[in-house]
Amino acid sequence: MSDLQGYIHREMPRFREELFDFLRIPSVSARSEHAGDIRAAADWVASRMRDAGLEASVMETPGHPVVLGEWRGAPPGAPTVLIYGHYDVQPPEPLDEWHSPAFEPTLRDGNIYARGASDDKGQLFLHIKALEAHLKVTGTLPVNVVVLAEGEEEVGSPSLVPFVEAHHERLACDVVVISDGSMFANGIPSLLFSLRGLAYFEIHVQGPKGDLHSGTYGGAVVNPGNTLARILASLKDDSGRVAIPGFYDDVMEWDQATRDAIRDLPFDEEGFMGEVGAPGLDGESGFSLLERLWIRPTCDVNGILCGYTGEGAKTVLPARAMAKVSFRLVPRQTPDRVRELIEEHIADVAPPEVTIRVLELHGGRPWKADLEGDFFEAARSALEAAFGTPPVLAGEGGSIPIVVDFQEILQAPVLLMGFAPPGANMHAPNEWIPVKNFETGIQAMASFYTQLGG
Amino acid sequence: MSDLQGYIHREMPRFREELFDFLRIPSVSARSEHAGDIRAAADWVASRMRDAGLEASVMETPGHPVVLGEWRGAPPGAPTVLIYGHYDVQPPEPLDEWHSPAFEPTLRDGNIYARGASDDKGQLFLHIKALEAHLKVTGTLPVNVVVLAEGEEEVGSPSLVPFVEAHHERLACDVVVISDGSMFANGIPSLLFSLRGLAYFEIHVQGPKGDLHSGTYGGAVVNPGNTLARILASLKDDSGRVAIPGFYDDVMEWDQATRDAIRDLPFDEEGFMGEVGAPGLDGESGFSLLERLWIRPTCDVNGILCGYTGEGAKTVLPARAMAKVSFRLVPRQTPDRVRELIEEHIADVAPPEVTIRVLELHGGRPWKADLEGDFFEAARSALEAAFGTPPVLAGEGGSIPIVVDFQEILQAPVLLMGFAPPGANMHAPNEWIPVKNFETGIQAMASFYTQLGG
Repeated sequence: MSDLQGYIHREMPRFREELFDFLRIPSVSARSEHAGDIRAAADWVASRMRDAGLEASVMETPGHPVVLGEWRGAPPGAPTVLIYGHYDVQPPEPLDEWHSPAFEPTLRDGNIYARGASDDKGQLFLHIKALEAHLKVTGTLPVNVVVLAEGEEEVGSPSLVPFVEAHHERLACDVVVISDGSMFANGIPSLLFSLRGLAYFEIHVQGPKGDLHSGTYGGAVVNPGNTLARILASLKDDSGRVAIPGFYDDVMEWDQATRDAIRDLPFDEEGFMGEVGAPGLDGESGFSLLERLWIRPTCDVNGILCGYTGEGAKTVLPARAMAKVSFRLVPRQTPDRVRELIEEHIADVAPPEVTIRVLELHGGRPWKADLEGDFFEAARSALEAAFGTPPVLAGEGGSIPIVVDFQEILQAPVLLMGFAPPGANMHAPNEWIPVKNFETGIQAMASFYTQLGG
Repeated sequence: MSDLQGYIHREMPRFREELFDFLRIPSVSARSEHAGDIRAAADWVASRMRDAGLEASVMETPGHPVVLGEWRGAPPGAPTVLIYGHYDVQPPEPLDEWHSPAFEPTLRDGNIYARGASDDKGQLFLHIKALEAHLKVTGTLPVNVVVLAEGEEEVGSPSLVPFVEAHHERLACDVVVISDGSMFANGIPSLLFSLRGLAYFEIHVQGPKGDLHSGTYGGAVVNPGNTLARILASLKDDSGRVAIPGFYDDVMEWDQATRDAIRDLPFDEEGFMGEVGAPGLDGESGFSLLERLWIRPTCDVNGILCGYTGEGAKTVLPARAMAKVSFRLVPRQTPDRVRELIEEHIADVAPPEVTIRVLELHGGRPWKADLEGDFFEAARSALEAAFGTPPVLAGEGGSIPIVVDFQEILQAPVLLMGFAPPGANMHAPNEWIPVKNFETGIQAMASFYTQLGG
């Protein structure tokens, strides 16, 4: 065990306690009442960056602040690595499904349960700890490092692109490293070859000006609830494909080699079924399960609210209905084009007796990796060294909208390596991360810097 | 002006104050937390019956109590009139759409605004006041009278049929009079020729065992929100007809004379449009607006709840989705048959990857009147005397499930005459009744008894 590895292993109890402190801050970016918690989380991250030996700044944006940690002591000509993560979290609801409170991190069976454990506080923090290890043990790093932690990832990063554009000189780098996803499987690390994008909408249907008695008016008034159901049903066809005209025009068809590689992965479909816990799986016909998750687009209802939803039978013809609906996008699709298509489609489908509003809440472009170069090789070696097995190339069904923006604005490749376990309940109750993943992630990143120095 | 008319007119300020007291009691039968208010409303009704000169009993049921008021001093051989009404009310939500509080009755422009003003406290109470007028002014009535006020009408009257069956000898009568609906138009009273029935369901769709991240799982997991939308959309076709196979098998086709009479009514379609306040009206093609409201069945979504419905974009693939859906039924349809048909239909439509539960919350059979006999003629004359214009024969889109049961158990015809204004917001915010309707209703019922004595 090297000094670096020894330091990390020895300091783990403290690292874990610090992570628990981080997880206790309910930094829910979607809720305005948590603005103070967001601020507290930003300050907390800045303090830990300073403890690690970085210079840290909490920088204002029109939304929640960006925390920037910098270490620029590498030899002249050394490259710069930019680490990106986020300190905000998803809302914790439904609260009654958590086995321990969402913001009281709890250790059970070697796993840490808390909102943000995997997404992304645990993974952001392991990067800070890897830097701390290098700086405390060797006093230096072979590369310059910038850590950028934002507080709006879970609401679509509205301030981040302007921030990166405004500070592109300070953020100039040779590679961007992001850990905001899962490993391919327990014990099998992965580097991502693609990310899906996202287009998230709220659809509002307004019928009568107020709620009506369903007996007195039913049969003559167009019901916004029935209409919304009709709109939502029209978004997908029987074969699991999105049924919006033109939706597949921009969808990239992957080469056979990539599709074969995906099919050859040792995917634990039974384990996946167990995580899901539904009577069965389904999706677009003609594609394997991993293809459907990684390289094919989707349409999912995220929420619906209409009329009376309390106890008992209220015979109301509701005045309005609302749905949250999102699409996962694949390379060459764009949220802007999807917005146009859904607006056209809904205008075609909806009857004239209701008023429809479509709001775009969140958009992120899909991404496709460049799988070559020194950084890619260093990451591959570091993951193999830490986990004892080489990483596989994997896709990711989720979205990190900023990836494409980083690549374009900073003109640097992006490496995506996740340390969360599959089934980490990232946007659901009982989010978790194994302590082991947290520690091995720190070891892997420490090794990454060592490789870059070698 | 007769003594009777004079008494009613003179006592109106007191009658109105008493009605306000009644309306202040939040006797919401659908909510268990209002059990105490229900009890208070029952006691209040019994006290007012006693004040009017009736003997009153608050009688227990497995649910909310029935209040029975009786006067049996008519000459031997005189018929018995049973008045039915209900003292429970709909939930007041959405509260923020009320211009004055739901349970603080407010007089504006000659109208009383409060939950229950029209449905049914105002109408139940006018019957009690008509009896009071007769008993105070003349000391007698030409008929025996039983007033039955229940507290579970808004939750489907679960205890009433067993109650009527158990007490059928005490409730024996020659006619049942019910005022729980609207007049045909302002100033035009009506007697009903039909009522629609009701079949009200909750549909629950369960997919994954817990909420999932829509990126990590979307595309492979059947989404209960999309599935529910598909089920709801499948319930109606493009022409506004219910699309459940077999649904129209039992639907009675009305004779041409009735359809012609409906088309000849001076219906204020523009006023109706104004009440609704939607960009347009629609419904089953091939039928006039009143036919769609009165003699044709419907399918209306009453509520939907699924996933995340708060502020912002939560990328969740929800574990479950729920809808409340109800059907208005017309003569010869039955809630039991509709339940069988919807269960079969949903089983056909739903994919096997989700679990569906269909709960029947509420059922009531449709009804068709017998439009002849002494009571019908007395009612017609009394309405004409009070309103200065003869009543029209009208249908009613709403449901009073007990009507069919009364007819069958007590073997007596039912007269339905409503005094609420059209557009009374009965199950919606800002429910109201004109003071004038309340007073003229009392005069009409007082005249009804006078006619029966003449």
